[in-house]
Amino acid sequence: MSTDHRPIGVFDSGIGGLSVLKHLVRLLPHERFVYLGDTARVPYGNKSPETVRLYSAQCAAFLLTHDVKMIVVACNTASALALDTLRTSASIPVIGVIEPAAREAVRRTRNKHIGVIGTRATIASDSYNRSIELASQGNTYFVHSRPCPLFVPLVEEGWLDTPSTRVIAEEYLKPLIANKIDTLVLGCTHYPLLEPVLQSLLAGVELIDCGACAAEDARIALGAEQHQGVSPTPEISLYVTDHTPAFTMLASQFLGMPVEEPVRVSLDTLASTQANR
Amino acid sequence: MSTDHRPIGVFDSGIGGLSVLKHLVRLLPHERFVYLGDTARVPYGNKSPETVRLYSAQCAAFLLTHDVKMIVVACNTASALALDTLRTSASIPVIGVIEPAAREAVRRTRNKHIGVIGTRATIASDSYNRSIELASQGNTYFVHSRPCPLFVPLVEEGWLDTPSTRVIAEEYLKPLIANKIDTLVLGCTHYPLLEPVLQSLLAGVELIDCGACAAEDARIALGAEQHQGVSPTPEISLYVTDHTPAFTMLASQFLGMPVEEPVRVSLDTLASTQANR
Repeated sequence: MSTDHRPIGVFDSGIGGLSVLKHLVRLLPHERFVYLGDTARVPYGNKSPETVRLYSAQCAAFLLTHDVKMIVVACNTASALALDTLRTSASIPVIGVIEPAAREAVRRTRNKHIGVIGTRATIASDSYNRSIELASQGNTYFVHSRPCPLFVPLVEEGWLDTPSTRVIAEEYLKPLIANKIDTLVLGCTHYPLLEPVLQSLLAGVELIDCGACAAEDARIALGAEQHQGVSPTPEISLYVTDHTPAFTMLASQFLGMPVEEPVRVSLDTLASTQANR
Repeated sequence: MSTDHRPIGVFDSGIGGLSVLKHLVRLLPHERFVYLGDTARVPYGNKSPETVRLYSAQCAAFLLTHDVKMIVVACNTASALALDTLRTSASIPVIGVIEPAAREAVRRTRNKHIGVIGTRATIASDSYNRSIELASQGNTYFVHSRPCPLFVPLVEEGWLDTPSTRVIAEEYLKPLIANKIDTLVLGCTHYPLLEPVLQSLLAGVELIDCGACAAEDARIALGAEQHQGVSPTPEISLYVTDHTPAFTMLASQFLGMPVEEPVRVSLDTLASTQANR
């Protein structure tokens, strides 16, 4: 157990990051967590890189006012576009979801054909390609990417396994199947909720949950032992920039446990927090 | 032709309002237009009423700095949640998309069963029910509403008539068809692009395009004659809060004509414009 009792900060554009927090809580049950979901500006996946960087910097600045010892960027789009900037400006470890998932994909693939699905912004950023290349140690891997912008609204509609979800998933996965991927990175924190449908369409393909990989990286960075035994009730402070219907409806499903009512922090507060740093 | 040469202001959460602007340009070809799409915070349909009101007030304040003579709220969610507030604070006419479409639906229905589809926020606001009741002149109309949150991402994905679009549309329209609607209000400015699919699933049902109705209201409010003859090239100043991929991809499709590169206005500018009023 860490002797540094400061909390771990986690942020996302909205609700999706709770699927990352789920794994953090599981691997680090004795830690405290501060989670910020920028629900007033969700999603990030359809915004420009410049705007995603601005919003991410504001989220990180807010977490730093809570004296966090580490920031986990629990959003693929923000990890793809803002991680370098955040690392430069913060004096604490900043962990994204892309590098850990890319390393895991390289470890797990057997035929070296890795699929990556994500938001339009994540895929356009080419971050998974770069991270897989960095992890490749000189070997050649074939990365087959596909933006799947309908998956987030499908999950938020609660249509996790309907006929339309299947039709859409088949359409999106068609080129990846044609390229004979044996490993698929779920490059968006909403996608683990679609795992049953995706797995049923991708027999024998390994699905990589970026949240699980990032949580393992966080555990190693904190030097924490692998947890054994019964976990205590996790201590989570939840903040959102807007009380949106989706958060209330889906938060406990993403986190895998009941969720308390989040505290709203205004965008003005967020902007001034960053300006004062 | 109006002797007031000031432009008409139009705003939306993003790109959808261009389908309203299309009708404004058609009915009022000699007017100038200033359009603001709040693409840095799009969509509004999944945000809270409080947040939609704040964003709408900022958009309206920005348009007022362009000395507009009228504001058209080219967004159903903003019309549903912010129109009263905007009307109270502005000294010029403010036209929303809901009242005109509700009046048109009442005029057109024969069996008094009106369907309304829109975003989650629009439907939850009950605005169409209230506006139809106001237009009913004591008659009883049956309003059958259904939020269709997947339609906007489907349109933005460019899947206007794919098998999955049909499956999703069938699912959404099922209860409306069961209720024997003979008129359907397309209560979101993205939906007119789905008209062919919707019409094919709703034989004999009249579809109401809220943008066309709002444009007609604007024409009447300005005392403009019905336009005859060849239209000049419209004079449109386009502003966005973020240069997003969707805007570039889809703007001309929504407007029905080529679109110039929009000018970006920062959220800071937007917020300070409102604060200074």
